[in-house]
Amino acid sequence: MKATGVVVEYNPFHNGHLHHLRETRRTTGADVVVAVMSGHFLQRGEPALVSKWSRTKMALEAGVDVVIELPYCFATQHAEFFSRGAISLLEAIGCESFCFGSEDGDIDTFEKTVQFIQANKEKYNTYISEFIQEGTSYPSALAKAFQRLGSGDSVIDLSKPNNILGFHYMEARNQLHTSLKAYTITRESAGYHDEHFSSPSIASATSIRKNIFSSEGDSKIDSYLPSTSVDQLSQYRLEYGEFHRWENYWTFLQYKLLSSSKEELKEIYEIEEGIENRMIELVKSSTSFEEFMMKLKTKRYTWTRLQRMLLHVLTSTKKEEMRSRHNSPRYIRLLGMNKTGREFIHSKKKEMPLPLISKLSSANQCDITLDVRAAEIYSLGLENTAARKKLLHQEWSQPPIII
Amino acid sequence: MKATGVVVEYNPFHNGHLHHLRETRRTTGADVVVAVMSGHFLQRGEPALVSKWSRTKMALEAGVDVVIELPYCFATQHAEFFSRGAISLLEAIGCESFCFGSEDGDIDTFEKTVQFIQANKEKYNTYISEFIQEGTSYPSALAKAFQRLGSGDSVIDLSKPNNILGFHYMEARNQLHTSLKAYTITRESAGYHDEHFSSPSIASATSIRKNIFSSEGDSKIDSYLPSTSVDQLSQYRLEYGEFHRWENYWTFLQYKLLSSSKEELKEIYEIEEGIENRMIELVKSSTSFEEFMMKLKTKRYTWTRLQRMLLHVLTSTKKEEMRSRHNSPRYIRLLGMNKTGREFIHSKKKEMPLPLISKLSSANQCDITLDVRAAEIYSLGLENTAARKKLLHQEWSQPPIII
Repeated sequence: MKATGVVVEYNPFHNGHLHHLRETRRTTGADVVVAVMSGHFLQRGEPALVSKWSRTKMALEAGVDVVIELPYCFATQHAEFFSRGAISLLEAIGCESFCFGSEDGDIDTFEKTVQFIQANKEKYNTYISEFIQEGTSYPSALAKAFQRLGSGDSVIDLSKPNNILGFHYMEARNQLHTSLKAYTITRESAGYHDEHFSSPSIASATSIRKNIFSSEGDSKIDSYLPSTSVDQLSQYRLEYGEFHRWENYWTFLQYKLLSSSKEELKEIYEIEEGIENRMIELVKSSTSFEEFMMKLKTKRYTWTRLQRMLLHVLTSTKKEEMRSRHNSPRYIRLLGMNKTGREFIHSKKKEMPLPLISKLSSANQCDITLDVRAAEIYSLGLENTAARKKLLHQEWSQPPIII
Repeated sequence: MKATGVVVEYNPFHNGHLHHLRETRRTTGADVVVAVMSGHFLQRGEPALVSKWSRTKMALEAGVDVVIELPYCFATQHAEFFSRGAISLLEAIGCESFCFGSEDGDIDTFEKTVQFIQANKEKYNTYISEFIQEGTSYPSALAKAFQRLGSGDSVIDLSKPNNILGFHYMEARNQLHTSLKAYTITRESAGYHDEHFSSPSIASATSIRKNIFSSEGDSKIDSYLPSTSVDQLSQYRLEYGEFHRWENYWTFLQYKLLSSSKEELKEIYEIEEGIENRMIELVKSSTSFEEFMMKLKTKRYTWTRLQRMLLHVLTSTKKEEMRSRHNSPRYIRLLGMNKTGREFIHSKKKEMPLPLISKLSSANQCDITLDVRAAEIYSLGLENTAARKKLLHQEWSQPPIII
């Protein structure tokens, strides 16, 4: 069986993802599509709208064959670590290729770009450091450094979010010396960060989430999601009472910042340059996460970077813990599969270089501390205590979802 | 000016306290009564019903002349450290005596008891260890060891809660070699732990709190409190929306236990003998503080001891932090005073062996970390975000209350 991989968050699974999925199957000619999906917390340092279990159901119902989890130590990272974790897992599970959506849409240009940067690595890194020293944020520094290298027209536009991610997948593929073949397809219509609907059926996940949390509710989103996703979202709200967002965790973050010493905060992953002092000071005068973020934001730190820092504060993830984990995955956590997926897993199981975790309660040999802690804290975002308890226990008791 | 001291929690200030206050003045012949009062968290490991500021007002309006704070590192301790902190502060502020309520009511018997135990210290401690080894709780072990010493009738009954406290005040007085003269007066009517009303005007603070949180509300408590206390309680509920109890902090405790490693919990004050493992396990299946406590409770640990452990978990108070602080007070924090109190403070100020803190924002030289952290976390027990912010800032901005 020929398998290809996709790297996803599905927050939530929408028509754009469906397009990507179909095009992936068509372009790669694969029999099996494996999605490596972030767990409860995402790359932008945010909680997912609904649990990984609910998002796994959406993925399977829309045609994904296997869903595995991108562990917390990769999922909540900047593009470099994020990509390395995802690409490693796709190779470990036995994919022959992977396929990503990008604004550029041409895989050769990506390869050329990676080679070009490889060849100019030293200069590139110097430029990046210089821009950061000037107070530019990391992503801007990357784009500016790249621009300064003056590579001409044969490279991709690294100011576009999906191109950036794609670039890092390609770089990870090179660095890991994997045999994975790379494909890219052009993203349809909506921009990654778009907050408004502009196409009749494709919208960004950002605009869909924004609409869900707006006062009008989720009535307008139906045309942008497969009906299976609409059903899953309704089902989640019915079962757990609400969706998850940062504001649900605000009082916990407040408590954590008020009850921690500066020394303890300095041990948290990504906390540096004395930002802990500003956090401790500003948390006292803020009454919501949004207000706190507005006060904390400076030109030096992107919104995403700050959110990731605060997420690590919330989950109490220390530098020490990340250091020993974020280089390469140590297990493959299976979240769900369909019939084809089951056959694929069965055929590859023996060759996998990493242990395959089906159920947490029988995975004693693996160090999954960070994922468990993240899941337990994610469950605290629910107001209803019975729903909270249910979600907390799901992390331990849920076998892979099978459809 | 002749000053006497009382050691109090005033949670809330009731008619029994009023009786104690009047009798103290009469018995000691003092011009000034200084109350050393626990802050936001109390000896039984619980949050106070209302803030220390509100309780200070109650005390002043009922006739106390000066209120100073018993710091967190003494207020939330077993009787020995609690008493040492309180007696030290009363001496430091310039009292000539102190006066406590007790079931026994005779100061000579207290003195004899302290001397008797002093003379049999070694045997006494051996008995205590033996009883604890057998699985008896600490307070029971104390009472049993005392009984086994076979001291006859000339000593106090150490199974009575106020006698125990009194005994520890007297012991602290001896150990600290203070010149404070000791007085005791007989407690009227209500037993310390009584949960039901039995007298027409005197009720225990326990029964009053129980009534406040019962479904009937606080309508029945008026006859047991001075009207000034009734007014303060109404005012607090109006201003802050609710009273404080452990359940208000349950989600924070849950979060703290889920987000901490066993190693981190082991560093918390009073956490020992592997109880952190049971806490981490049981917190997952509990949906309220009450339920959690019921599950955690064993014969070995008293309810109070467990509550104190959990309080230190909540406030993130580490063994290391307590070790350096709980031997003797390092500052006197003034919470409030009336005209007489002001004159007293003015006359004694220069002789005080410890710095007098009037306002936190101008007390940089003192290490008040634990009290500040406790106050900030106490404020998180309020649901209303504006009220929470107000209470949090009060710790920093409130000058001593003057009436």
